[in-house]
Amino acid sequence: MKVGQVVGTVVSTFNIPLLEEHRLLLCDIHDIDGEPEGYTICIDVVDAGMGEAVLILDEGNSARQILGIDTGAIRAVIVGVVDELAIDGELKVV
Amino acid sequence: MKVGQVVGTVVSTFNIPLLEEHRLLLCDIHDIDGEPEGYTICIDVVDAGMGEAVLILDEGNSARQILGIDTGAIRAVIVGVVDELAIDGELKVV
Amino acid sequence: MKVGQVVGTVVSTFNIPLLEEHRLLLCDIHDIDGEPEGYTICIDVVDAGMGEAVLILDEGNSARQILGIDTGAIRAVIVGVVDELAIDGELKVV
Amino acid sequence: MKVGQVVGTVVSTFNIPLLEEHRLLLCDIHDIDGEPEGYTICIDVVDAGMGEAVLILDEGNSARQILGIDTGAIRAVIVGVVDELAIDGELKVV
Amino acid sequence: MKVGQVVGTVVSTFNIPLLEEHRLLLCDIHDIDGEPEGYTICIDVVDAGMGEAVLILDEGNSARQILGIDTGAIRAVIVGVVDELAIDGELKVV
Repeated sequence: MKVGQVVGTVVSTFNIPLLEEHRLLLCDIHDIDGEPEGYTICIDVVDAGMGEAVLILDEGNSARQILGIDTGAIRAVIVGVVDELAIDGELKVV
Repeated sequence: MKVGQVVGTVVSTFNIPLLEEHRLLLCDIHDIDGEPEGYTICIDVVDAGMGEAVLILDEGNSARQILGIDTGAIRAVIVGVVDELAIDGELKVV
Repeated sequence: MKVGQVVGTVVSTFNIPLLEEHRLLLCDIHDIDGEPEGYTICIDVVDAGMGEAVLILDEGNSARQILGIDTGAIRAVIVGVVDELAIDGELKVV
Repeated sequence: MKVGQVVGTVVSTFNIPLLEEHRLLLCDIHDIDGEPEGYTICIDVVDAGMGEAVLILDEGNSARQILGIDTGAIRAVIVGVVDELAIDGELKVV
Repeated sequence: MKVGQVVGTVVSTFNIPLLEEHRLLLCDIHDIDGEPEGYTICIDVVDAGMGEAVLILDEGNSARQILGIDTGAIRAVIVGVVDELAIDGELKVV
């Protein structure tokens, strides 16, 4: 898992039901210093807000299991909002 | 998922039936600023047009599930045409 | 597997039971010279301490098998504490 | 899938039957401009010739399905010879 | 698969039986010119010696199949010792 931040939203025309039922959020993926090193478009299952620090899990099988489905076109999911992140004893996110 | 853009087509001689039944499109993969950071060759299931902004899902199991097949030689799929992409409240694609 | 070092902790609000039962550690991933080249957030199953050199396995299916579960939202796991690491006959970690 | 080019051959002593039955080819992986950006060692199922432009699929489950096997130690496969590749309307490979 | 070279050994305390039964080798992963571009820690099934050129397969499902197990915490495996590697007709490893 990586730490990221919700920075945008995506609206798309699908013909895949699963993707129409969930909100798609564009998230920066952060490096260890909290700087963006890339992005991914995630399905959100924790109702993360714009700008919030989040935990991103980027593995298809995990994603399907979180949604309680056996099959489905999905890979990256926001699994949690970060309440506290401490590196070398120093708080980075509160 | 990543945002990308359809930039080319590929014609190839296969001896794999699945790959002969679908159109292969070459897509730029975009970074957060909309600049290409790589490419992938995708199967298209949404009839994306040349130059269109698309959502690309690069996971084999997802790809097989979108096509409704249990097995098949496939990894990246165009899953949607991007209608709207907003980053930090600013519209990037309309 | 890669060699890494435990450098931080993460506290997050989940609605995914599995992730609430395990300690999440933020680990630097080391290059061959022992310098950080990235990080990942791992589930810890060996009670690794802050600052310890660890072996990190980053594959969802392995992770689930270590935890003895068939399904679960998980990808990276600390699988061992490194006792000794020798490169070209020279000890790097003791 | 990525576009690549067959540039070499590998002979190795295995104790894994599957790998002994197939030719291993070393392929450059090309970027969008046709320049090498890395390589991979592939199993060849289309009898690609030295120097030919090929399509490379790098996913274990796909690879096993192409070979018609349920299990097997394999990841990257040459799935086709590229007959034509057009980017922005310009032919790159004929 | 990638070409690599055995450069080190790792001794670790696990509570995972599989990892205790196999030798762990630290291998440089080589680029097309034979220069290291990273490393991985592999399970060795071919009794590779220190300094030998090897073929590394980095996919969990393949690794489990090589070991003849259905489940297990494993991802990268040394699958062969390289006897001969020719690029553009020039021998690189003998």
